[in-house]
Amino acid sequence: MARRRYKHSEKKVGASPGTLVYVGQEIDYKTTIRRIDYNEADYTIETVKKLALCTRPSEASPLVSWLDVDGIHEPQVVERIGQQYQLHPLLLEDVMNSQQKPKVEEYDGSYLFVTLKMLYFTKSGQELEHEHLSFVLGKNYLISFQEERKADLFQPILDRIQASAGKTRRNGSDYLLYALLDLVVDHYFVVLDSIGEKLEILENSIIEQVASQQTLTRLYTLKRELTLMRKLVWPVREIVNRILLEESDLIRPATIPFLRDLYDHVVQVLDSIDSYRELATGLLDVYLSTLSNRMNAVMKTLTIFSAIFMPLTFIVGVYGMNFDNMPELHTRNGYYVVLLIMVVLTVLMIIYFRRRKWF
Amino acid sequence: MARRRYKHSEKKVGASPGTLVYVGQEIDYKTTIRRIDYNEADYTIETVKKLALCTRPSEASPLVSWLDVDGIHEPQVVERIGQQYQLHPLLLEDVMNSQQKPKVEEYDGSYLFVTLKMLYFTKSGQELEHEHLSFVLGKNYLISFQEERKADLFQPILDRIQASAGKTRRNGSDYLLYALLDLVVDHYFVVLDSIGEKLEILENSIIEQVASQQTLTRLYTLKRELTLMRKLVWPVREIVNRILLEESDLIRPATIPFLRDLYDHVVQVLDSIDSYRELATGLLDVYLSTLSNRMNAVMKTLTIFSAIFMPLTFIVGVYGMNFDNMPELHTRNGYYVVLLIMVVLTVLMIIYFRRRKWF
Amino acid sequence: MARRRYKHSEKKVGASPGTLVYVGQEIDYKTTIRRIDYNEADYTIETVKKLALCTRPSEASPLVSWLDVDGIHEPQVVERIGQQYQLHPLLLEDVMNSQQKPKVEEYDGSYLFVTLKMLYFTKSGQELEHEHLSFVLGKNYLISFQEERKADLFQPILDRIQASAGKTRRNGSDYLLYALLDLVVDHYFVVLDSIGEKLEILENSIIEQVASQQTLTRLYTLKRELTLMRKLVWPVREIVNRILLEESDLIRPATIPFLRDLYDHVVQVLDSIDSYRELATGLLDVYLSTLSNRMNAVMKTLTIFSAIFMPLTFIVGVYGMNFDNMPELHTRNGYYVVLLIMVVLTVLMIIYFRRRKWF
Amino acid sequence: MARRRYKHSEKKVGASPGTLVYVGQEIDYKTTIRRIDYNEADYTIETVKKLALCTRPSEASPLVSWLDVDGIHEPQVVERIGQQYQLHPLLLEDVMNSQQKPKVEEYDGSYLFVTLKMLYFTKSGQELEHEHLSFVLGKNYLISFQEERKADLFQPILDRIQASAGKTRRNGSDYLLYALLDLVVDHYFVVLDSIGEKLEILENSIIEQVASQQTLTRLYTLKRELTLMRKLVWPVREIVNRILLEESDLIRPATIPFLRDLYDHVVQVLDSIDSYRELATGLLDVYLSTLSNRMNAVMKTLTIFSAIFMPLTFIVGVYGMNFDNMPELHTRNGYYVVLLIMVVLTVLMIIYFRRRKWF
Amino acid sequence: MARRRYKHSEKKVGASPGTLVYVGQEIDYKTTIRRIDYNEADYTIETVKKLALCTRPSEASPLVSWLDVDGIHEPQVVERIGQQYQLHPLLLEDVMNSQQKPKVEEYDGSYLFVTLKMLYFTKSGQELEHEHLSFVLGKNYLISFQEERKADLFQPILDRIQASAGKTRRNGSDYLLYALLDLVVDHYFVVLDSIGEKLEILENSIIEQVASQQTLTRLYTLKRELTLMRKLVWPVREIVNRILLEESDLIRPATIPFLRDLYDHVVQVLDSIDSYRELATGLLDVYLSTLSNRMNAVMKTLTIFSAIFMPLTFIVGVYGMNFDNMPELHTRNGYYVVLLIMVVLTVLMIIYFRRRKWF
Repeated sequence: MARRRYKHSEKKVGASPGTLVYVGQEIDYKTTIRRIDYNEADYTIETVKKLALCTRPSEASPLVSWLDVDGIHEPQVVERIGQQYQLHPLLLEDVMNSQQKPKVEEYDGSYLFVTLKMLYFTKSGQELEHEHLSFVLGKNYLISFQEERKADLFQPILDRIQASAGKTRRNGSDYLLYALLDLVVDHYFVVLDSIGEKLEILENSIIEQVASQQTLTRLYTLKRELTLMRKLVWPVREIVNRILLEESDLIRPATIPFLRDLYDHVVQVLDSIDSYRELATGLLDVYLSTLSNRMNAVMKTLTIFSAIFMPLTFIVGVYGMNFDNMPELHTRNGYYVVLLIMVVLTVLMIIYFRRRKWF
Repeated sequence: MARRRYKHSEKKVGASPGTLVYVGQEIDYKTTIRRIDYNEADYTIETVKKLALCTRPSEASPLVSWLDVDGIHEPQVVERIGQQYQLHPLLLEDVMNSQQKPKVEEYDGSYLFVTLKMLYFTKSGQELEHEHLSFVLGKNYLISFQEERKADLFQPILDRIQASAGKTRRNGSDYLLYALLDLVVDHYFVVLDSIGEKLEILENSIIEQVASQQTLTRLYTLKRELTLMRKLVWPVREIVNRILLEESDLIRPATIPFLRDLYDHVVQVLDSIDSYRELATGLLDVYLSTLSNRMNAVMKTLTIFSAIFMPLTFIVGVYGMNFDNMPELHTRNGYYVVLLIMVVLTVLMIIYFRRRKWF
Repeated sequence: MARRRYKHSEKKVGASPGTLVYVGQEIDYKTTIRRIDYNEADYTIETVKKLALCTRPSEASPLVSWLDVDGIHEPQVVERIGQQYQLHPLLLEDVMNSQQKPKVEEYDGSYLFVTLKMLYFTKSGQELEHEHLSFVLGKNYLISFQEERKADLFQPILDRIQASAGKTRRNGSDYLLYALLDLVVDHYFVVLDSIGEKLEILENSIIEQVASQQTLTRLYTLKRELTLMRKLVWPVREIVNRILLEESDLIRPATIPFLRDLYDHVVQVLDSIDSYRELATGLLDVYLSTLSNRMNAVMKTLTIFSAIFMPLTFIVGVYGMNFDNMPELHTRNGYYVVLLIMVVLTVLMIIYFRRRKWF
Repeated sequence: MARRRYKHSEKKVGASPGTLVYVGQEIDYKTTIRRIDYNEADYTIETVKKLALCTRPSEASPLVSWLDVDGIHEPQVVERIGQQYQLHPLLLEDVMNSQQKPKVEEYDGSYLFVTLKMLYFTKSGQELEHEHLSFVLGKNYLISFQEERKADLFQPILDRIQASAGKTRRNGSDYLLYALLDLVVDHYFVVLDSIGEKLEILENSIIEQVASQQTLTRLYTLKRELTLMRKLVWPVREIVNRILLEESDLIRPATIPFLRDLYDHVVQVLDSIDSYRELATGLLDVYLSTLSNRMNAVMKTLTIFSAIFMPLTFIVGVYGMNFDNMPELHTRNGYYVVLLIMVVLTVLMIIYFRRRKWF
Repeated sequence: MARRRYKHSEKKVGASPGTLVYVGQEIDYKTTIRRIDYNEADYTIETVKKLALCTRPSEASPLVSWLDVDGIHEPQVVERIGQQYQLHPLLLEDVMNSQQKPKVEEYDGSYLFVTLKMLYFTKSGQELEHEHLSFVLGKNYLISFQEERKADLFQPILDRIQASAGKTRRNGSDYLLYALLDLVVDHYFVVLDSIGEKLEILENSIIEQVASQQTLTRLYTLKRELTLMRKLVWPVREIVNRILLEESDLIRPATIPFLRDLYDHVVQVLDSIDSYRELATGLLDVYLSTLSNRMNAVMKTLTIFSAIFMPLTFIVGVYGMNFDNMPELHTRNGYYVVLLIMVVLTVLMIIYFRRRKWF
């Protein structure tokens, strides 16, 4: 059961801060970059072939420019984009460090940096995976960085932009940021639903007493996943809250109610995580007491058998002795009397255990 | 044991925010809407047949207008009411989302939105159910939305309005909101009483040691219900507190003491929930140690039987051997001596176990 | 084991707020009211026969007027007093609701309302009971309401007033309130001492390993009582703190140090409650591990018996077989050799178990 | 195992506040009072024989005057000192109440009252005792009250005063207070070290699996002592913090860094207490699982014996039957065949249990 | 298993505060001191032979002066440096007290004192060790004190200074402090990774059910190390936060983003510690329930054997009795009938236990 743990690469110890190193899994394809420019009237979508074309739009540009960077493992790509958009080196380091905790930071009021995790279950549904996402929000542009190519992750937003001049097209880059964050939080609910279903299966097997050691291992894994999820979602609440409170110029007032709605959703995710954790703990208690109960039942069975057959075996042993002088052996009905005594004894034993409610 | 869980419908992932989708159980009847207009002098109650008649009363109207909407599953109905009362689309989304956490929100000081959960046990008394309620409070109107037709839910208030020109009739829409919230909180107490009774039954069966595995399952279910209840009532405390603190123009000063009283009640509900949770945890400990105690008793019984009969069986086995040269077999009283030895041994064993307080 | 639980009467659901209903145990005697007027120079104590005589003293009166109302189950009495002293209806509701949480409230700076619980053990010392007390403090008057006639509850204060022109007589109604609250808190210490003694008895029986299932039930009951006590005393801390912080005109500066002292005492009560709870939890752990230890001892006894006698019984069984051709049976010393072998085997077993420190 | 518990004497219930009653253990010797006057140039130490000589030094006095009162059980002594130094009656009550929680209080900026506990193990090292200490700090005087004569408690400070015109002599009464408090906190470390050593012994005996029921009782006692210690040291942190924050005129700026250092030490004590508590809890878990492990081992032994000898005993029983027609009995090698079968069966059993890793 | 505990040397009790005593392990080599002066243009590194040369650089000096003191056990060395740099005596005491909790303190805005712990595993990887580090930051100088010679601890920074006129050389002493703190925090990650690996090994052995008592001891040791680590890292978070908040003149604005980054890392360390602790607790639960499960399996085996063989042994015992009159013994097929009966009985038993899912 191999798991990807939070690993802070050793080779980085002592490296000069701001050195760009990709910390995470090795990936073998090239970064792909798409640029989407749109306003209410029109939109263009193109795949960027040359990094030199990733330029910051002029402040006067009436279009919202979305640069969608897919892949964060090539330092030179990230660095080049950073230069052309004039981003702080530590920000770029955070973009590439897939172990970076979710956070928000505003740089001189000129751009806002948000990084958080996308969560999903692997295809097999066995492992909870997370993917590092970063967003840079400027006046009329947004850059999104994602760790791995998940062709369909931002697709719903692209579809909406292409579909019609709807809310997304009518609003600015801040609304686009909101829409993308909302998408990420919606995926948290999908993960939660999946965990909820697994928990329900475990609950049923425990309450119907068909649980095994494996059930417990699964329960433990679920608790682990909930702990991880909590750790990754908790700061998202703080991120949205800070965007709401800081009244940055980059966030238009019209976007505020949407962000407040997003905040509610994140809180709901956290609430559900906590409920599930409590549930899992309660289930463990039920399971352990089930074990105790079963042990009790087993022990009672053993004791009843022993208490009935030990005296009987002793009695027949007595009349198996070879003493010359054992008058009972030579009586006519001795054998039948002994059989009768043993039947009576057994009946008494059974009555006794019934009285003590042992079966 | 099927249970309704918090489920955030998957199909919503990626949908444009503000899209009205009913998230909850499918229901097959039409929304019914009642409109109650009253002041100290008079009142009218009518069932609204045409949505066009659900209009916001003019600010100058001397009547309090209460629109009681029963059913939140038809988007076009909710949307139409929203348009005619000029409500924010996200508010309407919250009205229809039966998974929405309880909360309060004020929109530009012109209306106040409150949503919370009504709690009740199913007829069978087995399952704790919750129903999504929303209120929109304006200067001289109140809209109430409820998830399912519970004919008797708001009936006591209607009765009071019809009965006499009492406190409800003499006061404004804010007092009506208070009266409805008070009703909801009163139902929390009913649920709590029911949980308290169940807990007492479990307590008795555990302390009198007639508890079974089923007792434990029930205890677990109770803890779960208390956890759910806490999750749903906790934000209500915050709601009432914020209404008290924010000094909205929509809340008249005369209503404040009543709201403070309501606040006290909610805190009392939360206190009782916490007490019950602690009680349940304590009961679990008692139950588990009861199991250990019982196991001890069973094991002692087994050990006593074994310790008495194993040596006896061995002795009679010795004299069951077929060696040619076993002088004891041929003595006159050998048999009786062996019987005596066994009686003495048994008595010694019994004394030994009595000394160790095994029985 | 019947217990009085927090029960919010169902019939109240939907009743108009401010309706006076006595919520608590039914009591069958009439309310008795005493009026004590005093200042440094003089005092009068009289039992009030007519409710009309319960009037608020004029602001100019140089006397402190204490109205001691014994019994809160007759709505008309409480209502009449409320009218004559011009008290808020919700306050009167709190006076009569014996389930009301302890709290303090100031009404327009003209009077202060305090309600809290008196705690005591029933005569049999088995059950922790609580009694609902309320105080209304005015400029020069104090009304005290108590749930049941406990002739001796406020007697020490009456004695002090009668005894001499001491501190109580020299000070105002605020000092009287302090003195009554101090009395209540002193009773908390009495209850705590009683719980402490019970805990010590349980501790001894657990540590000396003579504990039974009943010990556990008692431990559980104690924990329950501590939980209840904590719930009822915790808000008292808040009450005293708020009186101290709010700098009401009703509290003279000279009374402040006394209230601060009272605050210290309440905190000390809460500290002791928490210590006792921790102690009780620790004892439970010790008890459970004692059970495990005992089980281990029982199992070892069983295993030693089995391990010694099973092989022996097998050996004698072998020579009890009836094969024609068993040469050992016909040797001269076969019997003695077998006996010797069995002795050696037993000694080896005993050495083995001693080595493993089983006894 | 008699223990001194927090006991609030019952006879005090209803007594007028400010009544001086010694609450604590009965002690049979007289209070002794020493007066030490010093400044950088000189010092005098004298035992005060007449209470009339315990006078407050004039504000103009250039000497620091330390009144060291040993014994707090004689109300007339404490009262007289209180009168001559003009101390508040409630302060005197706190001085005499050995159950008083640690606290600090400033009276009108003219003197500061600090009370806390000295902790030490009894000579036998078995019981954690605490002693009630109080300090009254004035402009140029300090009064120290201690519960029992511990000749050596304040001796180090006296020695320093006598030794040379060092820091203590050069500084004011506030530094003297600091020095005394520092002494008390240093003793906390001594107690902690002692607890640490005991814990290490328990840890070793548990990890090396030689723990008995007694080990558990000791662990429980240690946890109790840590709980008590935490309760008594926690408010000391608050005391030092409040002295630091309140910027009283009684504390000179030069003393502030020393108090901050003292604060660090108290925090370190509290940290260690918490670490030890966690350690103790962890040890309990290890111990309990050790018990389970041992039980498992015992049960396996029993089961192996039973599983091997029960079938064997059955087989020899079969050939011990007395049927006329049992052909095997009369074959030549029947006996040896049966012996062989039994050996094979035993070997198979052993292989089976080895495979399941039972031994 | 000897461990170094937090030990506050007894001999210090009663010593005058500010007395320099080295509290920690005895070390037998001499302090070595290096002085590194650098700016963007140049750098010099020299080993200081005479203490007189450790002088504070003049405020006007354009170079950053780093004094790297290796060894804190010689009071006269620390005292001399303290004099020459005009440091507060209590600061020097903290430098030498290896038990000092991590903290930050600013002295009159002229220098900043930071002390914290370096963490590492011993070579054998068995024990978590910590080393006491202190830093004094002045306008253009930094003094670093380390407890033991770890030649390679600060080497990476020295290398960077020597390598090129990079960020370290271009920035001031505050950046140097940041770089050193960053190095310490990087080592926390190395320790965390090591703990994570150990935990993974334990997890595997527990989930694959090959855990022994030793596994538990290791789990306990890990939890202990995590507790220690948390205690030592927690205040570091506070240190960095306070440096960020206090806006000292000693910290240049350009260094702020780097410190914020450092803060993020410390928080990430603390998060991981908490996750690991939860994991360890979860593992313990799994382990304990594994034990219960195994016990259940063992008991079932025993009970099945007993339930099958006890009745059989009884039956053969019956026909081993020596009664004269036992007709069955003399029938022709008696023996075979009994054998058949026993086979049937065994089959029934097996069916019964299979039904109850015992194997």
